[in-house]
Order: sequence, then structure tokens, then C-alpha cells
Amino acid sequence: MPKTPNERFHAVIPAGGVGSRLWPLSRAAAPKFLHDLTGSGRTLLQGTWDRLVPLAGDRIAVVAGAAHESGIREQLEALLPANLFLEQSPRDSTAAIALAAAILSKREPDVIIGSFAADHAIADEQAFARTIREAIEVAATGRLVTIGIQPTFAATSFGYVHAGAALEVAGAPNARQVKDFVEKPNKALAQEFFESGNFLWNAGMFVAPASLILEQLSKSEPELHDRILEIADAWDTPKRAELVSKFWPQLKKIAFDYSVAEPAAAEGLVAVIPAEFEWHDVGDFAGVAELLSGGRPDNLAVIGDAQLLAEDSSGILVGQSKRLIAVVGLKDIIIVDTPDALLITTKEHAQSVKNIVETLKNSGHGDVL
Amino acid sequence: MPKTPNERFHAVIPAGGVGSRLWPLSRAAAPKFLHDLTGSGRTLLQGTWDRLVPLAGDRIAVVAGAAHESGIREQLEALLPANLFLEQSPRDSTAAIALAAAILSKREPDVIIGSFAADHAIADEQAFARTIREAIEVAATGRLVTIGIQPTFAATSFGYVHAGAALEVAGAPNARQVKDFVEKPNKALAQEFFESGNFLWNAGMFVAPASLILEQLSKSEPELHDRILEIADAWDTPKRAELVSKFWPQLKKIAFDYSVAEPAAAEGLVAVIPAEFEWHDVGDFAGVAELLSGGRPDNLAVIGDAQLLAEDSSGILVGQSKRLIAVVGLKDIIIVDTPDALLITTKEHAQSVKNIVETLKNSGHGDVL
Repeated sequence: MPKTPNERFHAVIPAGGVGSRLWPLSRAAAPKFLHDLTGSGRTLLQGTWDRLVPLAGDRIAVVAGAAHESGIREQLEALLPANLFLEQSPRDSTAAIALAAAILSKREPDVIIGSFAADHAIADEQAFARTIREAIEVAATGRLVTIGIQPTFAATSFGYVHAGAALEVAGAPNARQVKDFVEKPNKALAQEFFESGNFLWNAGMFVAPASLILEQLSKSEPELHDRILEIADAWDTPKRAELVSKFWPQLKKIAFDYSVAEPAAAEGLVAVIPAEFEWHDVGDFAGVAELLSGGRPDNLAVIGDAQLLAEDSSGILVGQSKRLIAVVGLKDIIIVDTPDALLITTKEHAQSVKNIVETLKNSGHGDVL
Repeated sequence: MPKTPNERFHAVIPAGGVGSRLWPLSRAAAPKFLHDLTGSGRTLLQGTWDRLVPLAGDRIAVVAGAAHESGIREQLEALLPANLFLEQSPRDSTAAIALAAAILSKREPDVIIGSFAADHAIADEQAFARTIREAIEVAATGRLVTIGIQPTFAATSFGYVHAGAALEVAGAPNARQVKDFVEKPNKALAQEFFESGNFLWNAGMFVAPASLILEQLSKSEPELHDRILEIADAWDTPKRAELVSKFWPQLKKIAFDYSVAEPAAAEGLVAVIPAEFEWHDVGDFAGVAELLSGGRPDNLAVIGDAQLLAEDSSGILVGQSKRLIAVVGLKDIIIVDTPDALLITTKEHAQSVKNIVETLKNSGHGDVL
């Protein structure tokens, strides 16, 4: 009996990126996915894992930088040792995803992989599972299936998925054809997208047969494809280190959207499932504050151990020290109190935190990055 | 040859009050006068001492709570042991000043005392000395002489001295009669005062013969006067402790303005010297910020050891830890970073810090007060 689409499914969690807009909580040594930013008691990585277990059991792999091996292993006790794919150095999303696709398809040629970033927050796990099950059904028909987030406002900070006609796939009543991907729009275009109803936020989650991903890559980036395949062939052998050393440092850095998703869309091979769930990319502290406010925008939410005394204030406090923190008369404030660095800013300036990190990098303060 | 007025002069520094609006820098154990709040490298108490040395040499006494003895002795190496008058408990300003007046006049009956709070900031020491020398000349004519600060705006947070006709006293060309003292006015009255030119801020500094102070007190508060005199008689004897224990705890708490200054004004015995110098009472962090901004209101000034990275921000940072503090996009911010407590507020809310301290007191956080 052939495997069902669900039986072919294997999840992949690319855990990359430091999240410098979340400094000083997020550091090179402790990037944002290793932190609890939702107040749930689980880190973003653990939350991602927890959401995938009902769909994939222990068929979950993590692709991450070698520096984070111990942090990841500590947080994910159920992660199978063979399913942690460590990158020698960051080579952008195509290398990370293609490496996972190549290793997993070598182990299991008909595998359908689903890629889910380690640093997203999705509270409704059941709605997530329903959406991904539809995506798996559609992926089994030979498509790359993205998850589209229904816009709640005219965002200019996300790329968009342009959805076309409904697809007729059993078990996937919400699936639609994707016409194309659109990069971050300007304000006017974002407003048009928002009103049309046919444009969804591209959350970077997708499900596809590994073979489809590799085939697309072989057409768009043949050299990158061939090197990744050579590394993957050696991965579960004693020759892994040799091949990684030989090829990894020279791999082309290119985003998966450019190398695979967009070319596949141009061939009519991409579908989208509009998500039923609320989704946060937790990109900066304004996002964290939104996530934690819980419909109480006048609240000053606390993550961590700080003792807070707040008057006439709102926003968030991320506290890693147990000391007393008094905040008076500050709206939309962001306070991040760590042992060696303190950040104080506002929601409005949350994006500027990245500049602070740049300044620190350039002024010899690498010790706090 | 009789002593000159200057030879009769003895300065007194009442060092009372915790300064709870300067929490968490100012604590019960380390009140504001023990801190450098001007960025000068000297604490407020040391600054007060330094200003008085050219006028009084080592004829300077300090009246303070017993808890602050060691802090004061450490900061004022030149303070003569016999000139530190320790209060068993706080009994308001009349008891503090009358005790000093009584002890000093017992030692030297014709002494002229000048009282200068330990927590004021006055940068121009020469102008200060000129003003006080005038006050000493007028005091020698048998008057209580206050120092009036020329208002720079219609303040409602100070009491006022209502100045009358010029006095004809040699060596005191700026002296004026005082008609009366006026308590903190409402906004409209403050505006009237500001425009009239005849109302000066009452900075609580005064110079007067000790005998005049004690005589006024004997009329307005005879019981308080008599007990203070009994304590003072025993002060430089082995019976000091006995008399202090017996009388001090029951002394009436009353402000010097009510017990002595206002009754003396009603008798026509009060004069004022309008100050030529800039004066700050450093009452709250907004005052500290003003003092430190140095005409650069867009600056974020630093007191202490913090490494500050500020962007698009103004106000003050008081840092007791050496860690890195990044501040982005906050105007008129007040940040006070101490080992066990962090305060974040704005200049506008500087007065509310007092409420925070009250709240902490009532919620079992006495450890950080």
C-alpha cells in the first residue's frame, strides 16, 4: 500500500538569524528562537516544535548554526540526533532548506518536507495543524504549497502571495493557485492588496515534495544544487566533514524565494493555503509587545523575573534580573534589562534597535552582541 | 576691639531629609546630599561645605541624623568633631536650627549663624560669598536676614519673600526690608509675583544672631525653646546623652518659617538680600536634568559610570553600574540605574517618584528604600 501524504511528511525548522532587532535579549550566542517571547513558558523554538509534533511526530529536523547546537539540544530533548543539521556558516535560506531536502530525500525519496521558521509565534495549534494538513494534501499533487496569512492591515513590511483560482484537491478545500509572489510593497500598493482580498502575507512557511524543490533548484541554480547534493550524499557517511569543508564555504547565498519559490510559481507549480490562525513573526519588540498585550494595550507586560511597579505606563519589560523596576508615565515603552546591557526605547523606535547593534559592532562593543 | 560681623559668623548646614523624589539614587541610608548630582565630582554636601569655607573657615557645623554620621565624616574631612550635631530622630527644622543656635551661642554668645541646606546647588561661589557677606552685615544690626532668589519664572513650588523698602546698612547695598513671607502661591498669584519684581523665592537660607533666633523662639514656642536650651546646656558635658534621651523625642515638630521667621517678619526684624547667583534646590530629577543640561536641552546627560549609547533622546541617566545602556527615541527621559532598583520616568513625572516610594513603603519593599 502506498504511503499517505501525511506519512510522507517530514518537518524542517530552519533556525537561523540572530534577531538583532531584539537586542539585548537576542544575542549572537543566544538568538531569539532560544527565548520565550510569548510569555508561554516555552521558547519560540520549543513552540515551533510543539506545533509540529501532532503533524510529524519525531519526523522533525532542525537546520541551524553550529554555535547553537548545545542550546538547541537542551531545549529540544525529543530531537533525534540525526535530525540536527548543523551549518558550518550561514549561507542564506536556499542552502539551509536544500540541504535538509537533499539529506531527507536521500533517506526517503518520496518525502514531503514542510519548512517552518523557528521564530514565529502561532497560538492556535489546532488551526495550524488543519492548515498544514491541507498543504500536505496539495503538496502530494506535486506542488510547492505556501501558507498565506490573511492581512489584518496594509503592511509594507511583508512580501505578499498573489492568490488565484481555487484548486480542486481532495482534503484541501481552501487551496488556491498562486499567480506570483510580490516583494514588500509601498504604502499605496499595500492598501490595494489589503482591499483586494487576493493578496496574503508570505510568512515563509511552505510544504513541498523534496524532489520538487531539488528539481527547481537544479534548473535555477545548477551549481548550488550539485554541491548541496554532493554534501547530502556524504552526510550520513564518514565523509561528511570532508565534503562540507570542501563545498559549504563557497555555496552561493540566495534566498529560497528567488531560487525556488518564484521560478516554481512562474511554472504554475505553487499553491497557497490561507491560514486560519493568527501569526506573529516577532520581528522586533513592538511585535513582542503586541503579542503580549493580550488586547490590553494600556498594560505594561512583563517577560522574565523583574519585579515591576508601573504607573500610568504601557508597553513591555523584559527582565533578566530580579531587581525592582519602577516605570512612571511612559506609554508604549520597551525596556530590556539584561545583566550587561539595558535597552530603553519605544514601540515606535523598535526597528531602530538594529542600528544600535550596528553601532555597537562598529565601536568595539562586540562583548554585548 | 570688638569682633567684626564676619568674625562672629558661624555657618550651620542642616542635612536633613531623604529626598524621596530622588529615589532610587537617594535612599534612607544614602540621602541626596551625599550624592554628586551636579556632575561636579563633589557631592551636594561637599559643594555646600566648599562654598562656606571662604566665609567661615572651619567655623562650620552640620546638623544631621545619627544614621548619616559616617557618611558625613567621610565626605567632610575638615569638619571638626565638635561641630557635628547628631539628631536622635528627625524633629523638623526648628529643632535642628535651634539646637545649633543654642549650642553655638553657649560656646560664643555673640555668634551670628548662617543656615544653608546641604542639598542646594549653587555654581557661582564668589557671588554666593558676596551675598552672604551682605547678609552678615545686616544680621549684625539685629535682624534675621533671608536670601531671596530672583524668580526666573512664575513658580508655584516655592514660597516667596515679599520685599519692601531698601535698608541703609553699610556693606549691604542690596538689603531690603521684608514685609512678609508668602506660602506657595497658585498659578495666577505666582504670575503676579513674577511680574511685580518685589517677590523673591524663599530658598530657606538665612543669617541671624543666634540670640535673636532663640529670643523669637522663646516667644512663639516657649516650651520647645526651654527644652532645646536644656539640651544645649548639657551638650558639651557628660550629661548630653541623658538630656537628649529625656527631651529630644518629645520636641514639637514645627518648621522654622512658622516658629521664627514669620513672627520675626511681623515684628519688622527680617531683611532680605536678593541673590546674584543661580540657585537650584535639586528637588527632583527634573531639577537634576535642568542642572546638568548646561543649556543643551537635547542632550542626554550622564551621572556616574554607565556607558551610554543614546539616539534621538534627551534627559538624564544616573548610572551606578558600568553596564551598557542604550536609549533610543525618548525625550526628557529620566533613568536611574542602581544595583537593586531601576527607575524609568520622564521629567514631567519627576514629582511622582515620591508616590513610588510611598507605594514601596506600603508594599513591603523597604529593602530598596
